[in-house]
Amino acid sequence: MPFSPIAVRTDMAVEAREIVRGADAREVPGVRVRERAAGGVKVTEVTVTTDEGARLLGKPVGYYVTLDAPAFRERDPDVRSALTDATADVLAPLVARAKGEHVLVVGLGNWNATPDALGPRVVDRLLVTRHLAAFLPEDVRRRTRPVSAVAPGVLGTTGIETVDIVRGIVREIRPDLVVAVDALAARSVERLMTSVQVTDTGIHPGSGVKNRRQGVTADSVGVPVVAVGVPSVVLASGIVQKALDLLADELRDELMFAEIVEGMTAPERRQLVEEVVSPKMGALMVTPKEVDELIDDMADVLAEALNRALQPDLDRKEWA
Amino acid sequence: MPFSPIAVRTDMAVEAREIVRGADAREVPGVRVRERAAGGVKVTEVTVTTDEGARLLGKPVGYYVTLDAPAFRERDPDVRSALTDATADVLAPLVARAKGEHVLVVGLGNWNATPDALGPRVVDRLLVTRHLAAFLPEDVRRRTRPVSAVAPGVLGTTGIETVDIVRGIVREIRPDLVVAVDALAARSVERLMTSVQVTDTGIHPGSGVKNRRQGVTADSVGVPVVAVGVPSVVLASGIVQKALDLLADELRDELMFAEIVEGMTAPERRQLVEEVVSPKMGALMVTPKEVDELIDDMADVLAEALNRALQPDLDRKEWA
Amino acid sequence: MPFSPIAVRTDMAVEAREIVRGADAREVPGVRVRERAAGGVKVTEVTVTTDEGARLLGKPVGYYVTLDAPAFRERDPDVRSALTDATADVLAPLVARAKGEHVLVVGLGNWNATPDALGPRVVDRLLVTRHLAAFLPEDVRRRTRPVSAVAPGVLGTTGIETVDIVRGIVREIRPDLVVAVDALAARSVERLMTSVQVTDTGIHPGSGVKNRRQGVTADSVGVPVVAVGVPSVVLASGIVQKALDLLADELRDELMFAEIVEGMTAPERRQLVEEVVSPKMGALMVTPKEVDELIDDMADVLAEALNRALQPDLDRKEWA
Amino acid sequence: MPFSPIAVRTDMAVEAREIVRGADAREVPGVRVRERAAGGVKVTEVTVTTDEGARLLGKPVGYYVTLDAPAFRERDPDVRSALTDATADVLAPLVARAKGEHVLVVGLGNWNATPDALGPRVVDRLLVTRHLAAFLPEDVRRRTRPVSAVAPGVLGTTGIETVDIVRGIVREIRPDLVVAVDALAARSVERLMTSVQVTDTGIHPGSGVKNRRQGVTADSVGVPVVAVGVPSVVLASGIVQKALDLLADELRDELMFAEIVEGMTAPERRQLVEEVVSPKMGALMVTPKEVDELIDDMADVLAEALNRALQPDLDRKEWA
Repeated sequence: MPFSPIAVRTDMAVEAREIVRGADAREVPGVRVRERAAGGVKVTEVTVTTDEGARLLGKPVGYYVTLDAPAFRERDPDVRSALTDATADVLAPLVARAKGEHVLVVGLGNWNATPDALGPRVVDRLLVTRHLAAFLPEDVRRRTRPVSAVAPGVLGTTGIETVDIVRGIVREIRPDLVVAVDALAARSVERLMTSVQVTDTGIHPGSGVKNRRQGVTADSVGVPVVAVGVPSVVLASGIVQKALDLLADELRDELMFAEIVEGMTAPERRQLVEEVVSPKMGALMVTPKEVDELIDDMADVLAEALNRALQPDLDRKEWA
Repeated sequence: MPFSPIAVRTDMAVEAREIVRGADAREVPGVRVRERAAGGVKVTEVTVTTDEGARLLGKPVGYYVTLDAPAFRERDPDVRSALTDATADVLAPLVARAKGEHVLVVGLGNWNATPDALGPRVVDRLLVTRHLAAFLPEDVRRRTRPVSAVAPGVLGTTGIETVDIVRGIVREIRPDLVVAVDALAARSVERLMTSVQVTDTGIHPGSGVKNRRQGVTADSVGVPVVAVGVPSVVLASGIVQKALDLLADELRDELMFAEIVEGMTAPERRQLVEEVVSPKMGALMVTPKEVDELIDDMADVLAEALNRALQPDLDRKEWA
Repeated sequence: MPFSPIAVRTDMAVEAREIVRGADAREVPGVRVRERAAGGVKVTEVTVTTDEGARLLGKPVGYYVTLDAPAFRERDPDVRSALTDATADVLAPLVARAKGEHVLVVGLGNWNATPDALGPRVVDRLLVTRHLAAFLPEDVRRRTRPVSAVAPGVLGTTGIETVDIVRGIVREIRPDLVVAVDALAARSVERLMTSVQVTDTGIHPGSGVKNRRQGVTADSVGVPVVAVGVPSVVLASGIVQKALDLLADELRDELMFAEIVEGMTAPERRQLVEEVVSPKMGALMVTPKEVDELIDDMADVLAEALNRALQPDLDRKEWA
Repeated sequence: MPFSPIAVRTDMAVEAREIVRGADAREVPGVRVRERAAGGVKVTEVTVTTDEGARLLGKPVGYYVTLDAPAFRERDPDVRSALTDATADVLAPLVARAKGEHVLVVGLGNWNATPDALGPRVVDRLLVTRHLAAFLPEDVRRRTRPVSAVAPGVLGTTGIETVDIVRGIVREIRPDLVVAVDALAARSVERLMTSVQVTDTGIHPGSGVKNRRQGVTADSVGVPVVAVGVPSVVLASGIVQKALDLLADELRDELMFAEIVEGMTAPERRQLVEEVVSPKMGALMVTPKEVDELIDDMADVLAEALNRALQPDLDRKEWA
């Protein structure tokens, strides 16, 4: 049963790479990975360098950084502060890389559905400055980057593909860069509300959680798109996977179960679940019980990190 | 002290006409007015037919209908139902007049500021269908008009002029008609949350309550714009006006006050207040204490009237 | 491996009975069940008549009605209307049974976490009348039951056990009956946002989704408590269960898996998952992707059904 | 026309004292006033020491501190920070004065009506700890005061007098002190969203903006009540007053108006407006256009000041 890349359904490049690579010691061809620690946060940079890498991972060529802070769910202020610092540090050069000045932040997702509300909640906390230029004292104005922000809503409530709204606005106001913030779907239960992914490839049609048919990318909107995301749901099949692994572990000594479950490779097990379980459970999502508080915490982290990265010359107390 | 049209600051054509006409028995030149009753609702149609009329009223050439239901604030279900019927009846021909099919409803205003939340709350209750075509049974699909809807936010939170967002979206999705819903500023305390204005001229830069510099009109967005509005605030100067009138009445017998206040014509009194009071109180707005419930009631009325006018071939229970 | 009742973790009596009874043709001792159809809605009345029944099901002696409308998730207006009718019919005699007049409706749960927001959203749509007596015309007043309503918040945001808040309010305002509305946890993925449970036993400490240590019952608050609930989440272990069943079905011909999985009885499989999976996944919940719209639909259904049951002598248009 | 104290309708003691005292150089009998500056904030302490003072001011015997920060409406971060410091400093001794430990914070007002949403928004930002004792590390627990918090809603949506809900909860959980946070009605347009009043007398039935018939005081709830409020509305009559003053100033040279308006004393003018204007405009409120942002800013200030005053032994980053 050879592994089919089609089965890799996650919004996170770091997970796609873990799955494709499996237990194998060799790296996926066309993929470069570097890991480091930043004040208690694990930073994994995945660079997809070739079309083959892109095909294998199901992610376009580009740069993906994952910041893992497993203790974030315990709501420790030190962890929150470390994750904010690390996210701001990753964002700063990506923002600086955009030649121009004006940045449009787009908060994707649905205000009214908690696990999908990350984008709008970040936009709500962001320092928006584009309309203030005329009112700011000259010395503040010179230090202030024009930032605009929208939360365009979701297809189900607008009847319009999100990318069409974003493209329309971009064509009118011509920002130099779009930063898109979104809730993601992950495979791994451990990453739920503990990881941040930053990428220069934009937002791509997801794993089916979002009912989004088109991505928000440089190609589709016409200017570079940096995407910032946090996994807030895993698909039901993801936790079934995890459960089978737990059961296989537990039942190692019970001969027959072990034989069948252990007898399959991890990708085989994954494909089995994907084929049998997903069609029946595709419309379910798994999310932490305390998702409301965690989304708020993450919105604080991302808004602060974005404000710092976007306004390096303003003092923190000028926006807080 | 000749009356200067500049002092007419109201979003309602019917009020502009009342002010300009004054106690005079003659109609304002270039303006045609018809009044009728519709089930307890007073319907006033104001048609501005010439540029002179437009200049005098400070409102563009076009058609303005005001539906007055003074008892609406008492939250009587019969009044609500009569106002819904009357609004749907006024909207239906304006929607039908647009040649094509697809209608984009735009909810202007700010979700988080109650007196300005009418537009977003209407959008929230609207039957949005544009994205459903592929999923509807053929017989339902044929009876269903494609409707999309957005609540683009306000300049203060997006950093973008509302009209730029709307124009961008219109250029992408090419609706045949835009219906813009907005909270209005009125002069008359009696009209607060009791009147609906429908017009085929779109939304024009307001009386200063909105900080909006550009209108949402056929000229600015490229397709016809029908606007639906409800006065939710009056400017502070409006109630001072009203108060002076009340005091003049009360003090008719106290010689000196009567002499001075009665000695001025109504426009003179208005201009005096405008010049002395407005500069100091321009940033204040007056709104009914129970504005939250009333905005919700009105959002119900407008959403129902819009659903009926936009989907004449669907049964009410298909969207309720 | 004898089945331990401790493993039955669901807020729904109908599910507890299904699990305990298993494939067995005999009814659980001390439990009486009647099924009927009501306009497309399946109505299952479970009456726990003895302490043994209560112990076996893990539910107190009392009356539990489940209304199943599997098509509710497709958002069909006819289904919604049938479910509203059926719920109102079940509620009416339970409300009438309370001797007095005044009913306090309590919306349990958390406004800000969508899957838990059912209770507060119902309260928001309810006709509240207790404070209006003095203002109503005599003929309306005589036909109007005094209804009050609170959404007390959750332990995590108040620092207070919900039952303490409810008991305190009950002691002050002395209602004759409390109706508690809450989101429930179920085992069965199929019942998610498609079923309503009504019971005369109140709310009991849940399956762990709620972090609630004490129930809201006649014993704890001092007046009878009717509870109305809708399952909006299943525990992660619930879907693993379901997945194992699906896999066992699929793999019936693959000898070894069949042997092990088929070789276990359903309760054994359940207990296995409970012991191995739950400790690691207890803090996760599974919910439909479109939970926001479904919670709103259900809040409409329950508010309308409650208004009808509580105000049998008012005309629908007097509250809508 | 002798001045009747009944006409003093403001929630702010400092305004009542200004009105009663008039232009007079002598202090109101039974009232003691001290003024000082605290980092750009003007602090006025009004102590009502006798029943005569209470009768004259229409405010019970007790201690009232007003913090005026006129520049707050310009949203300057330095002003915000100075106001936070000053409020925390005023609150600290009032909290310490309560013998026990446990403090219940009550956020009065209506979530959904922006000018009345201050209380609930403060509660939403507060560090709530009462339920955490068992989970905190011993060293943190010892430094942490048990704090609980509720936002009980308003009569119009609950059908229950707010004081009954608060009293019921107090009787159940027996806090040592209640801190009630509320939006206030002021007379002075200048104080709108720029002042904070702190008092040890609790909340008293207001100026009619609130439809509240009973206060939240030590007498009515059974434990001491510290109240913290911010004026977010002025009554319509308040701005008419102000307008007449502006007109009188402006028209000083126009003989007749001057004679009549100047001829009246300020209290006479006030009473005239009260009698003529208020009955017709009592249901209107005046509020700044940008009230949503200002309420959010003030909620930040009060929540931070309360957290500091309630948790003097916790580090700021432990709650932020």
